[in-house]
Amino acid sequence: MLLLEEKIKTAGRVLNDNVLKVDSFLNHQIDPKLMNEIGKEFAARFSQEGVTKIVTLESSGIAPAVMAGLYMNVPVIFARKRKSLTLVDNLLSASVHSFTKNETNEISISNKYLTQDDTVLIIDDFLANGEAALGLAEIVRQSGAKIAGIGIVIEKSFQPGADKLKEQGLRVESLARIASLTNGEVTFIKEKVEELI
Amino acid sequence: MLLLEEKIKTAGRVLNDNVLKVDSFLNHQIDPKLMNEIGKEFAARFSQEGVTKIVTLESSGIAPAVMAGLYMNVPVIFARKRKSLTLVDNLLSASVHSFTKNETNEISISNKYLTQDDTVLIIDDFLANGEAALGLAEIVRQSGAKIAGIGIVIEKSFQPGADKLKEQGLRVESLARIASLTNGEVTFIKEKVEELI
Repeated sequence: MLLLEEKIKTAGRVLNDNVLKVDSFLNHQIDPKLMNEIGKEFAARFSQEGVTKIVTLESSGIAPAVMAGLYMNVPVIFARKRKSLTLVDNLLSASVHSFTKNETNEISISNKYLTQDDTVLIIDDFLANGEAALGLAEIVRQSGAKIAGIGIVIEKSFQPGADKLKEQGLRVESLARIASLTNGEVTFIKEKVEELI
Repeated sequence: MLLLEEKIKTAGRVLNDNVLKVDSFLNHQIDPKLMNEIGKEFAARFSQEGVTKIVTLESSGIAPAVMAGLYMNVPVIFARKRKSLTLVDNLLSASVHSFTKNETNEISISNKYLTQDDTVLIIDDFLANGEAALGLAEIVRQSGAKIAGIGIVIEKSFQPGADKLKEQGLRVESLARIASLTNGEVTFIKEKVEELI
């Protein structure tokens, strides 16, 4: 998605070979017009999948997920994070390790909002090691719902997350795919020509 | 806002005289079309205030705030919560007690995204005791920015939050104002006739 790549080029900050900060438009300050375009793009890419629900993770996944939900006309559920899980009935949950923050959170969703009749699109802001997306997929499977695929705003393709998800047979659609962050510069994976027109 | 009041009547659950659960459309599962209408309504109510930024609090404030930001064409910043504040440079922060969860969080925003030239609309999902909104107002004041007002999705008007904010001279616009939750029933404060047409 060229608009997003341009935004990353101009407003993203490369902190080191592994870390890209996008807190000026996605993770802390949010650009609503960009989120609107991102929502449209997710809706277009998954339009043939019969999606009935979108699942994301608080907090940075919410803005792109709600915009996608608006265009797909389906509800959005955000999983909540908590440091330690007090066992609560009626929760679907999974354990997710964040390498960035070096902490493990339980993430959970009420079982009221997902059933085996649902087809779920999982949306998240970043895909790096894949921990969050794998945890969300685990939660959706616990409900018996079908997974339509994973929609990612920014994929760090030099980290193993995308491959782990594809190994599970999941369709991954990342709107920006970063090949490398070396020398303080963002290099994108070239997308197929038809997507650039 | 009649659409919102109807949604609260049909999908909200009154747990006791103080607690209204709206996790089927606002706090856990989100109704994107309703959020879109809520965003439009905030934009209309604050259209004359010269708003340059919207500030909200993760996680439940993000969806209505981003929709408002889309219609007002301004960036949205969400304050982050953390249990204990490790003192970090460049953060504007305040202490916020949640009576519902009986815990105190530090909430913070990077000082990069607010300046004294900004006019800020604060948006939050619920207004009860006013702790979150007061904390957000404190953060905005630390930056030197002007506060245009407070936009609230659901106000529990029988609790003191709205009055506390108005005592500080702040304009409060709540889209649904609940007079009481007694007998398991939601009673709204009647709005002026012209708003009902």
